[in-house]
Amino acid sequence: MVASMDTPETGEREAVVGAAIRLFSALSYDSTSMAQVAEAAGVDVATATHFFPTKRGLYLEVMTYAHRALAAAVEQPAREAQAGPPERSLAALHRFVDAYIDLCAEHPEIPALWTHRWMSDASDIDDLEEHSLQPLANEFVAGFTTLAEPAGTDPALLTYTIVWCIHGFTLSGTLDGTGRRVGMDDPELLRRFRAHMHEVLDRMVRLPD
Amino acid sequence: MVASMDTPETGEREAVVGAAIRLFSALSYDSTSMAQVAEAAGVDVATATHFFPTKRGLYLEVMTYAHRALAAAVEQPAREAQAGPPERSLAALHRFVDAYIDLCAEHPEIPALWTHRWMSDASDIDDLEEHSLQPLANEFVAGFTTLAEPAGTDPALLTYTIVWCIHGFTLSGTLDGTGRRVGMDDPELLRRFRAHMHEVLDRMVRLPD
Repeated sequence: MVASMDTPETGEREAVVGAAIRLFSALSYDSTSMAQVAEAAGVDVATATHFFPTKRGLYLEVMTYAHRALAAAVEQPAREAQAGPPERSLAALHRFVDAYIDLCAEHPEIPALWTHRWMSDASDIDDLEEHSLQPLANEFVAGFTTLAEPAGTDPALLTYTIVWCIHGFTLSGTLDGTGRRVGMDDPELLRRFRAHMHEVLDRMVRLPD
Repeated sequence: MVASMDTPETGEREAVVGAAIRLFSALSYDSTSMAQVAEAAGVDVATATHFFPTKRGLYLEVMTYAHRALAAAVEQPAREAQAGPPERSLAALHRFVDAYIDLCAEHPEIPALWTHRWMSDASDIDDLEEHSLQPLANEFVAGFTTLAEPAGTDPALLTYTIVWCIHGFTLSGTLDGTGRRVGMDDPELLRRFRAHMHEVLDRMVRLPD
Protein backbone atom coordinates (compact mmCIF):
# COMPACT_ATOMS: atom_id res chain seq x y z
CA MET A 1 0.00 0.00 0.00
CA VAL A 2 1.10 3.55 -0.64
CA ALA A 3 0.74 5.80 2.39
CA SER A 4 -0.64 9.25 1.72
CA MET A 5 0.50 12.32 3.65
CA ASP A 6 -0.72 12.92 7.18
CA THR A 7 -1.99 9.40 7.84
CA PRO A 8 -0.92 7.63 11.04
CA GLU A 9 1.18 5.38 8.79
CA THR A 10 3.12 8.37 7.42
CA GLY A 11 3.74 9.55 10.96
CA GLU A 12 5.10 6.16 11.98
CA ARG A 13 7.35 5.95 8.95
CA GLU A 14 8.74 9.42 9.68
CA ALA A 15 9.31 8.44 13.32
CA VAL A 16 11.33 5.40 12.18
CA VAL A 17 13.46 7.47 9.79
CA GLY A 18 13.96 10.18 12.43
CA ALA A 19 15.07 7.63 15.01
CA ALA A 20 17.44 6.04 12.50
CA ILE A 21 18.99 9.44 11.71
CA ARG A 22 19.58 10.04 15.43
CA LEU A 23 20.97 6.56 16.16
CA PHE A 24 23.08 6.11 13.00
CA SER A 25 24.64 9.56 13.52
CA ALA A 26 25.22 9.08 17.26
CA LEU A 27 26.24 5.41 17.38
CA SER A 28 26.92 4.45 13.74
CA TYR A 29 24.96 2.16 11.41
CA ASP A 30 27.01 -0.90 12.29
CA SER A 31 26.34 -0.45 16.04
CA THR A 32 22.59 0.09 15.70
CA SER A 33 19.96 -2.65 15.44
CA MET A 34 16.48 -2.43 13.94
CA ALA A 35 15.14 -3.19 17.43
CA GLN A 36 16.88 -0.09 18.81
CA VAL A 37 15.51 2.03 15.96
CA ALA A 38 11.98 0.73 16.59
CA GLU A 39 12.25 1.40 20.32
CA ALA A 40 13.57 4.94 19.77
CA ALA A 41 10.75 5.56 17.26
CA GLY A 42 8.13 4.31 19.72
CA VAL A 43 6.87 1.57 17.41
CA ASP A 44 7.23 -2.21 17.52
CA VAL A 45 9.80 -4.01 15.39
CA ALA A 46 7.12 -5.41 13.03
CA THR A 47 6.00 -1.87 12.22
CA ALA A 48 9.58 -0.72 11.58
CA THR A 49 10.30 -3.69 9.29
CA HIS A 50 6.97 -3.13 7.50
CA PHE A 51 8.39 0.17 6.26
CA PHE A 52 12.01 -0.98 5.99
CA PRO A 53 12.39 -4.75 5.58
CA THR A 54 16.19 -4.37 5.85
CA LYS A 55 18.48 -2.10 7.86
CA ARG A 56 20.30 -1.48 4.58
CA GLY A 57 17.16 0.04 3.06
CA LEU A 58 16.74 2.25 6.11
CA TYR A 59 20.38 3.37 5.82
CA LEU A 60 19.87 4.33 2.18
CA GLU A 61 16.80 6.37 3.20
CA VAL A 62 18.82 8.14 5.92
CA MET A 63 21.71 8.91 3.57
CA THR A 64 19.25 10.15 0.93
CA TYR A 65 17.94 12.57 3.56
CA ALA A 66 21.51 13.73 4.31
CA HIS A 67 22.29 14.08 0.62
CA ARG A 68 19.13 16.03 -0.18
CA ALA A 69 19.60 18.40 2.75
CA LEU A 70 23.17 19.15 1.66
CA ALA A 71 22.22 19.59 -1.99
CA ALA A 72 19.28 21.86 -1.08
CA ALA A 73 21.57 24.06 1.01
CA VAL A 74 24.61 24.49 -1.20
CA GLU A 75 24.06 23.23 -4.76
CA GLN A 76 22.63 26.57 -5.89
CA PRO A 77 25.60 28.73 -4.74
CA ALA A 78 28.02 26.10 -6.12
CA ARG A 79 26.35 26.44 -9.53
CA GLU A 80 26.27 30.23 -9.35
CA ALA A 81 30.00 30.25 -8.57
CA GLN A 82 30.66 28.45 -11.86
CA ALA A 83 29.07 31.23 -13.92
CA GLY A 84 31.29 34.19 -13.04
CA PRO A 85 32.37 36.96 -13.38
CA PRO A 86 35.00 36.63 -10.59
CA GLU A 87 33.42 38.98 -8.04
CA ARG A 88 30.04 37.24 -8.41
CA SER A 89 31.71 33.83 -8.17
CA LEU A 90 33.44 34.89 -4.95
CA ALA A 91 30.16 36.14 -3.47
CA ALA A 92 28.53 32.80 -4.42
CA LEU A 93 31.37 30.86 -2.71
CA HIS A 94 30.86 32.95 0.43
CA ARG A 95 27.18 31.95 0.32
CA PHE A 96 28.29 28.33 -0.17
CA VAL A 97 30.45 28.48 2.97
CA ASP A 98 27.73 30.21 5.00
CA ALA A 99 25.01 27.81 3.89
CA TYR A 100 27.22 24.78 4.64
CA ILE A 101 28.00 26.13 8.12
CA ASP A 102 24.34 26.95 8.78
CA LEU A 103 23.24 23.47 7.69
CA CYS A 104 25.78 21.79 10.02
CA ALA A 105 24.90 24.10 12.91
CA GLU A 106 21.23 23.19 12.55
CA HIS A 107 21.77 19.52 11.61
CA PRO A 108 25.02 18.25 13.18
CA GLU A 109 23.76 14.74 12.42
CA ILE A 110 24.59 15.29 8.74
CA PRO A 111 28.38 15.65 9.11
CA ALA A 112 28.21 12.93 11.79
CA LEU A 113 26.63 10.48 9.32
CA TRP A 114 29.34 11.22 6.76
CA THR A 115 32.13 11.01 9.34
CA HIS A 116 30.92 7.59 10.48
CA ARG A 117 31.07 6.59 6.83
CA TRP A 118 34.66 7.88 6.57
CA MET A 119 35.40 5.62 9.55
CA SER A 120 34.25 2.64 7.44
CA ASP A 121 30.74 2.54 8.87
CA ALA A 122 28.32 0.63 6.61
CA SER A 123 31.22 -0.25 4.32
CA ASP A 124 29.19 -3.13 2.85
CA ILE A 125 26.95 -0.50 1.22
CA ASP A 126 29.47 0.77 -1.29
CA ASP A 127 27.58 2.45 -4.12
CA LEU A 128 26.61 5.69 -2.33
CA GLU A 129 29.81 7.50 -3.25
CA GLU A 130 29.53 6.72 -6.96
CA HIS A 131 25.83 7.38 -7.48
CA SER A 132 25.04 10.09 -4.99
CA LEU A 133 28.08 11.86 -3.51
CA GLN A 134 30.36 12.04 -6.55
CA PRO A 135 27.95 14.08 -8.74
CA LEU A 136 27.39 16.52 -5.86
CA ALA A 137 31.14 16.74 -5.17
CA ASN A 138 31.69 17.48 -8.87
CA GLU A 139 29.30 20.45 -8.62
CA PHE A 140 31.14 21.74 -5.55
CA VAL A 141 34.59 21.40 -7.11
CA ALA A 142 33.41 23.05 -10.34
CA GLY A 143 32.19 25.98 -8.24
CA PHE A 144 35.62 26.46 -6.67
CA THR A 145 37.56 25.81 -9.90
CA THR A 146 36.50 29.08 -11.58
CA LEU A 147 38.48 31.10 -9.04
CA ALA A 148 40.94 28.58 -7.62
CA GLU A 149 42.61 27.60 -10.87
CA PRO A 150 43.72 31.09 -11.96
CA ALA A 151 44.94 31.65 -8.36
CA GLY A 152 47.21 28.59 -8.49
CA THR A 153 45.13 26.72 -5.87
CA ASP A 154 44.12 23.05 -6.20
CA PRO A 155 40.32 23.33 -6.71
CA ALA A 156 39.41 19.87 -5.38
CA LEU A 157 41.62 20.16 -2.31
CA LEU A 158 40.29 23.66 -1.59
CA THR A 159 36.75 22.25 -1.72
CA TYR A 160 37.70 19.43 0.65
CA THR A 161 39.50 21.91 2.93
CA ILE A 162 36.23 23.80 3.39
CA VAL A 163 34.29 20.56 3.97
CA TRP A 164 36.84 18.97 6.34
CA CYS A 165 37.01 22.15 8.44
CA ILE A 166 33.24 22.62 8.71
CA HIS A 167 32.75 18.93 9.58
CA GLY A 168 35.66 19.01 12.05
CA PHE A 169 34.37 22.15 13.75
CA THR A 170 30.81 20.78 13.93
CA LEU A 171 31.92 17.51 15.50
CA SER A 172 34.85 18.50 17.70
CA GLY A 173 34.72 22.25 18.14
CA THR A 174 37.91 23.63 19.65
CA LEU A 175 39.44 23.41 23.13
CA ASP A 176 38.73 26.54 25.16
CA GLY A 177 42.06 26.67 27.02
CA THR A 178 40.84 24.67 30.02
CA GLY A 179 40.25 21.41 28.10
CA ARG A 180 36.55 22.01 27.54
CA ARG A 181 35.25 21.58 23.99
CA VAL A 182 33.31 24.53 22.61
CA GLY A 183 31.79 24.71 19.17
CA MET A 184 28.71 25.57 17.16
CA ASP A 185 26.71 26.36 20.30
CA ASP A 186 29.03 29.26 21.22
CA PRO A 187 27.84 32.25 19.14
CA GLU A 188 31.12 34.19 19.42
CA LEU A 189 33.24 31.18 18.43
CA LEU A 190 30.85 30.41 15.57
CA ARG A 191 31.25 34.01 14.36
CA ARG A 192 35.05 33.65 14.53
CA PHE A 193 34.92 30.31 12.70
CA ARG A 194 32.75 31.73 9.94
CA ALA A 195 35.06 34.74 9.48
CA HIS A 196 38.07 32.38 9.42
CA MET A 197 36.54 30.18 6.71
CA HIS A 198 35.81 33.26 4.61
CA GLU A 199 39.42 34.37 5.09
CA VAL A 200 40.73 30.94 4.04
CA LEU A 201 38.55 31.08 0.95
CA ASP A 202 39.55 34.67 0.08
CA ARG A 203 43.25 34.03 0.47
CA MET A 204 43.20 30.76 -1.48
CA VAL A 205 41.44 32.28 -4.50
CA ARG A 206 43.42 35.53 -4.50
CA LEU A 207 45.51 35.95 -7.62
CA PRO A 208 49.26 35.53 -7.08
CA ASP A 209 51.04 38.86 -6.61
CA MET B 1 55.15 -7.79 39.69
CA VAL B 2 56.92 -5.40 37.35
CA ALA B 3 57.62 -6.91 33.95
CA SER B 4 61.05 -6.20 32.52
CA MET B 5 61.65 -5.72 28.80
CA ASP B 6 61.65 -8.69 26.47
CA THR B 7 59.97 -11.14 28.83
CA PRO B 8 56.99 -13.16 27.54
CA GLU B 9 54.85 -11.00 29.87
CA THR B 10 56.01 -7.80 28.16
CA GLY B 11 55.19 -9.34 24.81
CA GLU B 12 51.67 -10.24 25.95
CA ARG B 13 51.05 -6.77 27.36
CA GLU B 14 52.21 -5.20 24.10
CA ALA B 15 49.95 -7.55 22.14
CA VAL B 16 46.96 -6.46 24.26
CA VAL B 17 47.73 -2.75 23.77
CA GLY B 18 48.33 -3.28 20.04
CA ALA B 19 45.01 -5.11 19.65
CA ALA B 20 43.23 -2.36 21.60
CA ILE B 21 44.73 0.32 19.34
CA ARG B 22 43.50 -1.55 16.26
CA LEU B 23 40.01 -2.26 17.62
CA PHE B 24 39.35 1.10 19.33
CA SER B 25 40.47 2.94 16.17
CA ALA B 26 38.49 0.69 13.80
CA LEU B 27 35.32 0.07 15.82
CA SER B 28 35.46 2.64 18.67
CA TYR B 29 36.00 2.11 22.38
CA ASP B 30 32.30 1.88 23.15
CA SER B 31 31.79 -0.92 20.58
CA THR B 32 34.76 -3.02 21.70
CA SER B 33 34.75 -5.52 24.57
CA MET B 34 37.73 -6.78 26.59
CA ALA B 35 36.94 -10.25 25.20
CA GLN B 36 37.39 -8.97 21.64
CA VAL B 37 40.67 -7.29 22.58
CA ALA B 38 41.95 -10.51 24.22
CA GLU B 39 40.96 -12.57 21.19
CA ALA B 40 42.63 -10.16 18.74
CA ALA B 41 45.75 -10.17 20.94
CA GLY B 42 45.83 -13.97 21.01
CA VAL B 43 45.61 -14.18 24.81
CA ASP B 44 42.82 -15.28 27.12
CA VAL B 45 40.62 -12.75 28.90
CA ALA B 46 42.26 -13.44 32.27
CA THR B 47 45.64 -12.47 30.82
CA ALA B 48 44.24 -9.27 29.32
CA THR B 49 42.55 -8.25 32.57
CA HIS B 50 45.73 -9.11 34.51
CA PHE B 51 47.41 -6.23 32.66
CA PHE B 52 44.33 -4.01 32.42
CA PRO B 53 41.68 -4.74 35.07
CA THR B 54 39.33 -2.25 33.38
CA LYS B 55 38.65 -1.30 29.76
CA ARG B 56 38.94 2.31 30.94
CA GLY B 57 42.57 1.72 31.99
CA LEU B 58 43.29 0.15 28.62
CA TYR B 59 41.72 3.15 26.85
CA LEU B 60 43.92 5.55 28.82
CA GLU B 61 46.98 3.50 27.79
CA VAL B 62 45.91 3.63 24.13
CA MET B 63 45.29 7.38 24.22
CA THR B 64 48.64 7.89 25.97
CA TYR B 65 50.26 6.07 23.06
CA ALA B 66 48.41 8.34 20.58
CA HIS B 67 49.35 11.43 22.56
CA ARG B 68 53.05 10.51 22.83
CA ALA B 69 53.32 9.65 19.15
CA LEU B 70 51.82 13.01 18.20
CA ALA B 71 53.97 14.95 20.66
CA ALA B 72 57.13 13.13 19.51
CA ALA B 73 56.38 13.99 15.88
CA VAL B 74 55.38 17.65 16.06
CA GLU B 75 56.10 19.23 19.47
CA GLN B 76 59.67 20.14 18.47
CA PRO B 77 58.75 22.06 15.28
CA ALA B 78 55.84 23.73 17.14
CA ARG B 79 58.34 25.00 19.75
CA GLU B 80 60.85 26.08 17.13
CA ALA B 81 58.12 28.06 15.36
CA GLN B 82 57.58 30.09 18.54
CA ALA B 83 61.19 31.33 18.60
CA GLY B 84 61.36 33.21 15.28
CA PRO B 85 62.64 35.08 13.32
CA PRO B 86 59.75 34.86 10.81
CA GLU B 87 61.51 32.91 8.04
CA ARG B 88 62.71 30.31 10.57
CA SER B 89 59.23 30.14 12.13
CA LEU B 90 57.73 29.50 8.71
CA ALA B 91 60.25 26.75 7.98
CA ALA B 92 59.41 25.17 11.37
CA LEU B 93 55.66 25.29 10.58
CA HIS B 94 56.35 23.56 7.26
CA ARG B 95 58.17 20.83 9.22
CA PHE B 96 55.17 20.70 11.60
CA VAL B 97 52.79 20.11 8.68
CA ASP B 98 55.06 17.51 7.08
CA ALA B 99 55.65 15.63 10.32
CA TYR B 100 51.90 15.61 11.10
CA ILE B 101 51.11 14.27 7.61
CA ASP B 102 53.88 11.65 7.85
CA LEU B 103 52.63 10.49 11.26
CA CYS B 104 49.06 10.08 9.99
CA ALA B 105 50.22 8.33 6.78
CA GLU B 106 52.16 5.82 8.87
CA HIS B 107 49.67 5.59 11.75
CA PRO B 108 46.14 6.30 10.48
CA GLU B 109 44.88 4.79 13.74
CA ILE B 110 45.93 7.99 15.56
CA PRO B 111 43.52 10.39 13.79
CA ALA B 112 40.92 7.59 13.88
CA LEU B 113 41.15 7.36 17.69
CA TRP B 114 40.70 11.13 18.00
CA THR B 115 37.86 11.21 15.49
CA HIS B 116 35.98 8.51 17.41
CA ARG B 117 36.44 10.71 20.45
CA TRP B 118 35.02 13.70 18.57
CA MET B 119 32.01 11.46 17.85
CA SER B 120 31.47 11.11 21.62
CA ASP B 121 33.26 7.77 21.91
CA ALA B 122 34.35 7.03 25.50
CA SER B 123 32.61 10.20 26.65
CA ASP B 124 32.52 8.85 30.21
CA ILE B 125 36.31 9.33 30.30
CA ASP B 126 36.33 13.07 30.31
CA ASP B 127 39.65 14.26 31.69
CA LEU B 128 41.87 13.49 28.67
CA GLU B 129 41.25 16.85 27.02
CA GLU B 130 42.15 18.87 30.09
CA HIS B 131 45.23 16.98 31.23
CA SER B 132 46.71 15.70 28.03
CA LEU B 133 45.40 17.31 24.86
CA GLN B 134 45.02 20.93 26.00
CA PRO B 135 48.72 21.45 26.91
CA LEU B 136 49.77 19.96 23.55
CA ALA B 137 47.18 22.08 21.70
CA ASN B 138 48.55 25.16 23.49
CA GLU B 139 52.05 24.38 22.13
CA PHE B 140 50.66 24.00 18.63
CA VAL B 141 48.66 27.22 18.74
CA ALA B 142 51.63 29.14 20.20
CA GLY B 143 53.70 27.88 17.25
CA PHE B 144 51.22 29.30 14.73
CA THR B 145 50.57 32.52 16.68
CA THR B 146 54.03 34.02 15.98
CA LEU B 147 53.22 34.33 12.28
CA ALA B 148 49.42 34.19 12.18
CA GLU B 149 48.74 37.15 14.46
CA PRO B 150 50.70 39.79 12.48
CA ALA B 151 49.07 38.40 9.31
CA GLY B 152 45.55 38.95 10.67
CA THR B 153 44.79 35.23 10.85
CA ASP B 154 43.14 33.55 13.85
CA PRO B 155 46.01 31.43 15.29
CA ALA B 156 43.86 28.79 17.01
CA LEU B 157 41.57 28.32 14.02
CA LEU B 158 44.55 28.13 11.64
CA THR B 159 45.99 25.38 13.86
CA TYR B 160 42.69 23.49 13.82
CA THR B 161 42.39 24.01 10.04
CA ILE B 162 45.68 22.13 9.57
CA VAL B 163 44.60 19.38 12.00
CA TRP B 164 41.05 18.99 10.61
CA CYS B 165 42.36 18.76 7.03
CA ILE B 166 45.08 16.21 7.81
CA HIS B 167 42.66 14.09 9.85
CA GLY B 168 39.97 14.41 7.18
CA PHE B 169 42.35 13.47 4.38
CA THR B 170 43.72 10.51 6.36
CA LEU B 171 40.27 9.13 7.12
CA SER B 172 38.27 9.95 4.01
CA GLY B 173 40.72 10.82 1.26
CA THR B 174 39.01 12.40 -1.73
CA LEU B 175 36.69 11.04 -4.42
CA ASP B 176 38.59 10.26 -7.63
CA GLY B 177 35.85 11.31 -10.07
CA THR B 178 34.30 7.84 -10.35
CA GLY B 179 33.16 7.62 -6.71
CA ARG B 180 36.20 5.70 -5.48
CA ARG B 181 37.96 7.06 -2.38
CA VAL B 182 41.69 7.66 -2.78
CA GLY B 183 43.97 8.99 -0.09
CA MET B 184 47.26 8.55 1.71
CA ASP B 185 48.06 5.39 -0.25
CA ASP B 186 48.15 7.29 -3.56
CA PRO B 187 51.64 8.87 -3.79
CA GLU B 188 50.66 11.52 -6.35
CA LEU B 189 47.58 12.59 -4.39
CA LEU B 190 49.62 12.64 -1.16
CA ARG B 191 52.16 14.91 -2.88
CA ARG B 192 49.32 17.22 -4.02
CA PHE B 193 47.79 17.24 -0.54
CA ARG B 194 51.11 18.09 1.09
CA ALA B 195 51.74 20.94 -1.37
CA HIS B 196 48.19 22.22 -0.78
CA MET B 197 48.64 22.25 3.01
CA HIS B 198 51.88 24.20 2.62
CA GLU B 199 50.06 26.64 0.35
CA VAL B 200 47.25 27.09 2.89
CA LEU B 201 49.83 27.74 5.60
CA ASP B 202 51.85 30.17 3.46
CA ARG B 203 48.83 32.18 2.40
CA MET B 204 47.32 32.33 5.88
CA VAL B 205 50.52 33.69 7.48
CA ARG B 206 51.39 36.08 4.65
CA LEU B 207 51.31 39.71 5.74
CA PRO B 208 48.36 41.71 4.40
CA ASP B 209 49.28 43.71 1.28
